[in-house]
Amino acid sequence: MKKYNVGILGATGMVGQNYIILLQNHPWFNIVDVAASPRSAGKPYKDAVKTKWQRSISIPNSIKNLVVRDVQDFDNIPEDIDIVFSAINMPLKEQIKEIELKYARSSFPVISNNSVHRWTPDVPMIIGEINHEHANIIPIQQKNRGFTKGFVVVKPNCSLQSYLTPIYALEEAGFKISKLVITTLQAVSGAGYPGVASLDIIDNIVPYIDGEEEKTEKEPLKILGRIGKIGIENRKDMKISATCTRVPISDGHTASVNMKFKEKVPSKEEIIKIWSSFKSAPQDLDLPFAPKQPILYLENIDRPQPKKDRDNDKGMAVTVGRLREDNVFDYKFVSLSHNTVRGAAGGAILNAELLIVKDFIK
Amino acid sequence: MKKYNVGILGATGMVGQNYIILLQNHPWFNIVDVAASPRSAGKPYKDAVKTKWQRSISIPNSIKNLVVRDVQDFDNIPEDIDIVFSAINMPLKEQIKEIELKYARSSFPVISNNSVHRWTPDVPMIIGEINHEHANIIPIQQKNRGFTKGFVVVKPNCSLQSYLTPIYALEEAGFKISKLVITTLQAVSGAGYPGVASLDIIDNIVPYIDGEEEKTEKEPLKILGRIGKIGIENRKDMKISATCTRVPISDGHTASVNMKFKEKVPSKEEIIKIWSSFKSAPQDLDLPFAPKQPILYLENIDRPQPKKDRDNDKGMAVTVGRLREDNVFDYKFVSLSHNTVRGAAGGAILNAELLIVKDFIK
Amino acid sequence: MKKYNVGILGATGMVGQNYIILLQNHPWFNIVDVAASPRSAGKPYKDAVKTKWQRSISIPNSIKNLVVRDVQDFDNIPEDIDIVFSAINMPLKEQIKEIELKYARSSFPVISNNSVHRWTPDVPMIIGEINHEHANIIPIQQKNRGFTKGFVVVKPNCSLQSYLTPIYALEEAGFKISKLVITTLQAVSGAGYPGVASLDIIDNIVPYIDGEEEKTEKEPLKILGRIGKIGIENRKDMKISATCTRVPISDGHTASVNMKFKEKVPSKEEIIKIWSSFKSAPQDLDLPFAPKQPILYLENIDRPQPKKDRDNDKGMAVTVGRLREDNVFDYKFVSLSHNTVRGAAGGAILNAELLIVKDFIK
Amino acid sequence: MKKYNVGILGATGMVGQNYIILLQNHPWFNIVDVAASPRSAGKPYKDAVKTKWQRSISIPNSIKNLVVRDVQDFDNIPEDIDIVFSAINMPLKEQIKEIELKYARSSFPVISNNSVHRWTPDVPMIIGEINHEHANIIPIQQKNRGFTKGFVVVKPNCSLQSYLTPIYALEEAGFKISKLVITTLQAVSGAGYPGVASLDIIDNIVPYIDGEEEKTEKEPLKILGRIGKIGIENRKDMKISATCTRVPISDGHTASVNMKFKEKVPSKEEIIKIWSSFKSAPQDLDLPFAPKQPILYLENIDRPQPKKDRDNDKGMAVTVGRLREDNVFDYKFVSLSHNTVRGAAGGAILNAELLIVKDFIK
Repeated sequence: MKKYNVGILGATGMVGQNYIILLQNHPWFNIVDVAASPRSAGKPYKDAVKTKWQRSISIPNSIKNLVVRDVQDFDNIPEDIDIVFSAINMPLKEQIKEIELKYARSSFPVISNNSVHRWTPDVPMIIGEINHEHANIIPIQQKNRGFTKGFVVVKPNCSLQSYLTPIYALEEAGFKISKLVITTLQAVSGAGYPGVASLDIIDNIVPYIDGEEEKTEKEPLKILGRIGKIGIENRKDMKISATCTRVPISDGHTASVNMKFKEKVPSKEEIIKIWSSFKSAPQDLDLPFAPKQPILYLENIDRPQPKKDRDNDKGMAVTVGRLREDNVFDYKFVSLSHNTVRGAAGGAILNAELLIVKDFIK
Repeated sequence: MKKYNVGILGATGMVGQNYIILLQNHPWFNIVDVAASPRSAGKPYKDAVKTKWQRSISIPNSIKNLVVRDVQDFDNIPEDIDIVFSAINMPLKEQIKEIELKYARSSFPVISNNSVHRWTPDVPMIIGEINHEHANIIPIQQKNRGFTKGFVVVKPNCSLQSYLTPIYALEEAGFKISKLVITTLQAVSGAGYPGVASLDIIDNIVPYIDGEEEKTEKEPLKILGRIGKIGIENRKDMKISATCTRVPISDGHTASVNMKFKEKVPSKEEIIKIWSSFKSAPQDLDLPFAPKQPILYLENIDRPQPKKDRDNDKGMAVTVGRLREDNVFDYKFVSLSHNTVRGAAGGAILNAELLIVKDFIK
Repeated sequence: MKKYNVGILGATGMVGQNYIILLQNHPWFNIVDVAASPRSAGKPYKDAVKTKWQRSISIPNSIKNLVVRDVQDFDNIPEDIDIVFSAINMPLKEQIKEIELKYARSSFPVISNNSVHRWTPDVPMIIGEINHEHANIIPIQQKNRGFTKGFVVVKPNCSLQSYLTPIYALEEAGFKISKLVITTLQAVSGAGYPGVASLDIIDNIVPYIDGEEEKTEKEPLKILGRIGKIGIENRKDMKISATCTRVPISDGHTASVNMKFKEKVPSKEEIIKIWSSFKSAPQDLDLPFAPKQPILYLENIDRPQPKKDRDNDKGMAVTVGRLREDNVFDYKFVSLSHNTVRGAAGGAILNAELLIVKDFIK
Repeated sequence: MKKYNVGILGATGMVGQNYIILLQNHPWFNIVDVAASPRSAGKPYKDAVKTKWQRSISIPNSIKNLVVRDVQDFDNIPEDIDIVFSAINMPLKEQIKEIELKYARSSFPVISNNSVHRWTPDVPMIIGEINHEHANIIPIQQKNRGFTKGFVVVKPNCSLQSYLTPIYALEEAGFKISKLVITTLQAVSGAGYPGVASLDIIDNIVPYIDGEEEKTEKEPLKILGRIGKIGIENRKDMKISATCTRVPISDGHTASVNMKFKEKVPSKEEIIKIWSSFKSAPQDLDLPFAPKQPILYLENIDRPQPKKDRDNDKGMAVTVGRLREDNVFDYKFVSLSHNTVRGAAGGAILNAELLIVKDFIK
């Protein structure tokens, strides 16, 4: 198979580092460009991240000496790049928005981890197993904006990766859901680096994460929506309430979920069967980053647990447990996913694989 | 004021130790008896707890050399004891039940932290600020069982202390609540000592605590119930759903709560005013262990936090924050209380104070 | 007794906040001035620290509405200030140095937590129980620099507070020490706020703290030195080797210490007796912040422990344990002190008390 | 190559579980027998460990249904076992000693993690890279005790694995060491399961581990000793002083080490070169569990760190850093190894591989 040349925008930050590690032995992708702020530009990658390389694994040798490009130096983007992964982090959201569009305008497919374009109507927000068909809005986006080959595709917030696939699996099996009440227990890595101060979280919980509850409540409605004339139209008949908390663990977001079905209510056995047998496009297409079984249901009464389950299927599977009947709604359960793999760079890489196989990236 | 002589059953365990610390300078109480298992019996208290004293504060000098009595040695209970605090911990629940009744039968008022009698209909389960009037069932209990002076009163589980007082305050102000969805984030001290293994909780969450969700869902219904002919009759028109998780913090249980009102829905300002001005019998009677303000509402967007708020008003206040309108129900909020103070020995001591002032203990 | 008016430089930072809490009910001191960076200047204190107030205790009412002064606005220093506590934190060390000297030149006694003047020869670096007599260099400093009433006094680094008093107590009892090998296990609060990133320390140790080993090895030599003609002359015949590590705990620095005596070697019993009975000027003068017993020796085999012992005597005592004979040197032991109380603001307040009683502050 | 049949004694405990995971895809070994206490005997392995399986990885399918044998049922040891790994844990040390000898007497080579035989003179205590030649005492042991094919070999305590290989590498290069002062910061997994109570270690350090300092000080002397007539004779001219502490991290023991050379003192560059190029029998023989580079020296100023370095070379490498000149001795450094891999089951597996290649196991 053809190897695709990949550029990483925001390559020196924490998400950027994750891309570099996750792509290290990727069968399809080859990192050829690392871009970051002017402060890092011109330096070999290893020097630019000297004091901030966060990973236990060392910087791959093939990346160490790549010279960092200024992310806004559009004149020197290597022409042979096939895909751009964006992990840009800047104070001004409008600026990020503009930069990503500029790359798209310059004919580069942009797969972004950033939140800035999540509500741009003609930009699809994709979870591979759920709404891969939203990719079909790409030609509309290109037409709207006069892009030729380029486009922008985003992935959603890390807080909802743990429960939305199980919810979707039930809906896809014919059991529509009308209400969700969710409390998340989120890992500190979700806040980037340096992120959460240790003094704030050792022996403590912070029951607030800026902007997170809004994202958790609204993004699912776009993901579960459908393509309309000018963009994705949100799902209307589902209500979600989220409380997001920060807990003293390193990786893995946990969600406690109560759910109410719209009409038909499946049995406990049916739900577990639906989850355990759920497969979607990434599995059918056998994509490199697709978890074999996207939803792992564990019977053990005290699972899922972040330390034991976050790395299931290389951090790409959602682990679910504790399905119980609910006094108030129909059922409740606990689910977990790795926020910096499935919930960030890993999810974006899976999106890129999907767009290649679906021929949006050539 | 008269000093009351106090005995502690299960005095060597973690809750027993908390009683000893909390009663240290109590203006009304004087510890004269410490009872525990045959293994500890006959030893000076300081030797019996030698390897398991868990507190930063040292054993009070007045207690160090008290000789531990076998909790089942009923022949040698000091006759001058006015109140018995029970923190017995034994594998067989029936045995604990029987021991506590035997003390009551022997004319001792028993205030218990144990769960065994929580569902005994004529045993009141009291939170001082909520259902202090349930104490009026004591004469019925005494009549039922032929007790003269003795009786058994219990306190509820630590997991619900953080949110039930705020819920009650709203109901008492005329805003009845019909549905609650709750997720708790509970400290390891709730499991006693040695309790949770460090290997299970460092960098981890355990989304299950044995028996805790049942207690959290059902006990409030008794507390909010009313005295019937043969015992407390449960509140019927409230539904509670609970998910209980263990998180890596030492003290302080946090609850994320979604609530739906039955009919009238107060405004956000009304709720905060009701909470901030709430007072009940313990405050009116100016009891030594009563928090001045039982519900502290904090405006800061990221509170309550266990490390910063568990010790509010010496660990006896409930701290609440993050009141927001809710997409699914009416409102949601986060609340916190100190599980080993308000939620255990401290709550029981407050109950004892109340029963003295109400003349059930003489 | 006369009340002394106190100003706090760097009042909005973490050490500044500690001063405010610790001085809250101080019998001698009254905070009348809070100074900080131009960013905070002009705001009421409560607004200036809005997002960064780190303490569980609320801002005292008397401080909330004090308007923050620009620390470099020398024209508006309240004239009635008797003492200035400096917790200034700025990128340029030379600038801090100059500011502190300027306050001294303007006739204010400056007690500083900062490291910048620790090696200025005529500035004494004082631990109340050890080298209170170094205060006698103040007249020399004033003469050298043409100060009238003002001067600068500093306290040493927090890493050495845990073991230097025990070492000094032995020397003072006639047992001179020649060699020390030390490994510290330091709490995250030692790095200020935000300080250590949670991602760096959850389930981790960082075996390096910038500049800390040098301070731990050299500062004791000045503290144990004596007043010479132009300044303090370092102790020469003691060698110290330090390894400083950061561990995932909130407060309390622990030190593992191996010590070799110069000539006479005391018995284990003698050492414990010397430590347990050690008293010095702060105790003799009955200063408000003086721990009653500066060195607490615990016989329990597994102490001192930060969570259980850091608050001993309100965080001002050093707790020591595990004295054992040593295969390589003579003895080894483990010691602990509260880094943000004894090791920072608390130690400085004790110094101020000492300087008042010794008549250097009038 | 021939596959060796392996039995695990104490297979249900934490070390036993580690063996099962580590041997899962081992090219030479095949687990055919799992033995444990009578309580587990007769049950399929998966049921015997139901509530105590500690690993994130599931029980391998090939092991799940192996019926657990009573470890003291000597009549039913499968005859085709080639090697027995002992992770027996019992209250009576004499009993463990006897059981291991009985297996040896029954012709099984026993590789033990237990401490009971570490001081049996004719039992070698082996670290593959250091004293593999001590295996030559096996024939003496067999002769002494009338064993035919069987024998007992042990591995040392986990606390010394992090620093002894670096020390040995220097000695082997001609730089003899006379004195070591060591402070360890040890992970909770070293205490087994349930082991350390979370209440004892969240936000805390425990500066004592029962028996650990003695092991850390004495075991190196046997490992660095030589074969004498009746057993290993200890190294005599090295003095070690150890302080062992427990810190709140899950895996990975760190050691802070000060060392004094006997005569010749190498330069810093020489030391780093010796460490980085060190290889020994396990590497020369290319054993499956041998780390490619047994000692990794990291130049980064803040390494080694447990979270980032414990898994280096699958947990079998020792990671070293912070080599500095020492005020008191000659040099100091910080080293780290994975206590449950290199320091327990992994080290024992490497020993078994070595004994196969050296023909002691056939």
